[in-house]
Amino acid sequence: MHAVKTSDVFELLRDGGPQTRAQLAESSGLARSTIAARIDVLLRLGLVAPYGDAVSTGGRPPSLLALNPSARVVVGVDLGATHARAVLADLAGTILAEARADLDIADGPDVVLGWVTTTVRSLLRGQQRKLADLAAIGIGLPGPVEHSSGRAINPPIMPGWDRYDVPAHVRRHVDVPVLIDNDVNIMALGEQHAHFPDVQDLVFIKVSTGIGAGIISGGALQRGAMGTAGDVGHVRLPGAEGVTCRCGNEGCLEAVAAAPALAATLRASGAEVTGSADIVALVRGGNLDAVQVVRQAGRDMGEVVAMVVNFINPSVVVIGGAMSGAGEHLIAGIRETVYQRSLPLATEHLRIVPSAAGEQAGVLGAAALAIAHVLSPAEIERASLAVTG
Amino acid sequence: MHAVKTSDVFELLRDGGPQTRAQLAESSGLARSTIAARIDVLLRLGLVAPYGDAVSTGGRPPSLLALNPSARVVVGVDLGATHARAVLADLAGTILAEARADLDIADGPDVVLGWVTTTVRSLLRGQQRKLADLAAIGIGLPGPVEHSSGRAINPPIMPGWDRYDVPAHVRRHVDVPVLIDNDVNIMALGEQHAHFPDVQDLVFIKVSTGIGAGIISGGALQRGAMGTAGDVGHVRLPGAEGVTCRCGNEGCLEAVAAAPALAATLRASGAEVTGSADIVALVRGGNLDAVQVVRQAGRDMGEVVAMVVNFINPSVVVIGGAMSGAGEHLIAGIRETVYQRSLPLATEHLRIVPSAAGEQAGVLGAAALAIAHVLSPAEIERASLAVTG
Repeated sequence: MHAVKTSDVFELLRDGGPQTRAQLAESSGLARSTIAARIDVLLRLGLVAPYGDAVSTGGRPPSLLALNPSARVVVGVDLGATHARAVLADLAGTILAEARADLDIADGPDVVLGWVTTTVRSLLRGQQRKLADLAAIGIGLPGPVEHSSGRAINPPIMPGWDRYDVPAHVRRHVDVPVLIDNDVNIMALGEQHAHFPDVQDLVFIKVSTGIGAGIISGGALQRGAMGTAGDVGHVRLPGAEGVTCRCGNEGCLEAVAAAPALAATLRASGAEVTGSADIVALVRGGNLDAVQVVRQAGRDMGEVVAMVVNFINPSVVVIGGAMSGAGEHLIAGIRETVYQRSLPLATEHLRIVPSAAGEQAGVLGAAALAIAHVLSPAEIERASLAVTG
Repeated sequence: MHAVKTSDVFELLRDGGPQTRAQLAESSGLARSTIAARIDVLLRLGLVAPYGDAVSTGGRPPSLLALNPSARVVVGVDLGATHARAVLADLAGTILAEARADLDIADGPDVVLGWVTTTVRSLLRGQQRKLADLAAIGIGLPGPVEHSSGRAINPPIMPGWDRYDVPAHVRRHVDVPVLIDNDVNIMALGEQHAHFPDVQDLVFIKVSTGIGAGIISGGALQRGAMGTAGDVGHVRLPGAEGVTCRCGNEGCLEAVAAAPALAATLRASGAEVTGSADIVALVRGGNLDAVQVVRQAGRDMGEVVAMVVNFINPSVVVIGGAMSGAGEHLIAGIRETVYQRSLPLATEHLRIVPSAAGEQAGVLGAAALAIAHVLSPAEIERASLAVTG
């Protein structure tokens, strides 16, 4: 803390509940003039608003001030291989409206981001909110992302997106901060915010066409030095030698346990399956081949989950993505290997659970990413400077 | 920030350099009375001291205040299987004195911690420092540690230490805060502080009798939910099926790539070796068998390092521990596999290097752990309350 910042005063109100300016000065030890100036900025930003009436000690009643979560809104967007979802949320994370579309990421940035900007406007209109109320947009992309620049980097299933400047495109149509992350990172954030707010160490594993992980460790999302953290799909699996992966290496987890590999196995025994949805349908219908194939995929995944548990020691491992619809058969296979392979202390209080947020995990996380940005000290300072000139 | 804390004023001085009370009040927006009271506490704690002379604007010259890193000292202790090291350092991390002993951790807490408390006193005496100058002690133990309680948990090479209350023992003789962590965590901290202060994502891998990792991700040491993060020794290695590990499982990395496995291989071809030191001596002497065995151990380790690189995406992987004395042969084997197995984006700027801190990594990290505790906001508040009653 080099000087009292607007964000410091915001935090006093966030953590201390409704207070008057005088109470803020007294409880904090800050100069009254400092409090008054910072509150003025927060009122102009809409982050703080007058709250009820305080008891007066004579003269003009002192006004109570409090956070104002509904003053601004954010949009969270989850872009998958063949779907797109969006939510409008207030700064407390309450969902105000939703939208969904079948949309191919391979149609490229113009089509997909066209849907995003159109949807942002229609979500706002539907809730009678102005564009000026929108504080930020969070977007999850189904591929590796350079979080700092918001660019997708060599995304395998996203032709036309390599190094594309997603924030710049969106801001040409809706000029607010745009935060980009990969889909499994925002799913981890969404699952944690919605269902494990007190958990500091959570790994979210998405299983569908590929296999990837979002890592929350020590309470923070861990993106790694280049933003590629969480790649568990290309770990070499004991016993999978000779199986070629789409990455060019041999024996990767994805090459034996992701949906395309399971579909190929089932087709070889005569079933008509192309992807996760077909496999999940067969499992739910009680098809024994499909149940066995999924259970074995769980065991194979368990080898890598055991490694993750030994390495980062989470208290919760969440299994999500389209294949998680195959339910307990997948989880049972994973648990079988993990409890055999991991160290006793690391598994003593470990929970391995299916995603509770389900298809909402991504949009919830994208909204959380946007809200965290809007309420970050740096962003409040930036906004303060903008209103004070 | 719920109120202006002593630690806030400490940070103003730490980040802003020497200042007068009036300058602190003006630049920060804090009330003058608040600044005066907090500075009084920091002077009594010895963390801040008068600094030179400020230019007066008339009357009594206002006194400049600054941090006072030499006012207090810490001791960092690194306990290994058969050695013990300690350093005395000031709050800036400058090493003032060192001590070393050949000491068996298996001799148990009384003997080993007896050395620690005796050494703390002799290090202080040697530098003419009083016990009251000692602010904290950091200790690394060669086994799993519950960081919050400072107890070793089921440590395999530490008979008599299971759940032993290390801080309570030390505090019966030297009553200052005692921070405990496992040896490889403090080695990671020490390496980062001494050689990679700007690196946020560093994994330190210790190779000797066992193989373990210390993980710094997003700038912070990651201990995991139960404090067991970094266990890479018991990851199942492709191709190592049938090799039984001391943990009871099969095919663990340790069972094929740690010093005991390499020594057994070399003994089978007639060499007289018992541990890391003998193997390192053979490699340095140019023994071809030893070179090949170490190179292959590097390749095997590379499988697990590749997994670590894909999963947590560090920018630096440091190889330390006794076996790292085998130098480039081990590192070359590791690199060979990592650059073949890891994803291009994850290895684009990756450095895999031998430990530069070497045998000092542990004590440097233990001292850093103690200093971070002493200067943490919570600890400054606790100390403030103690002096103000």
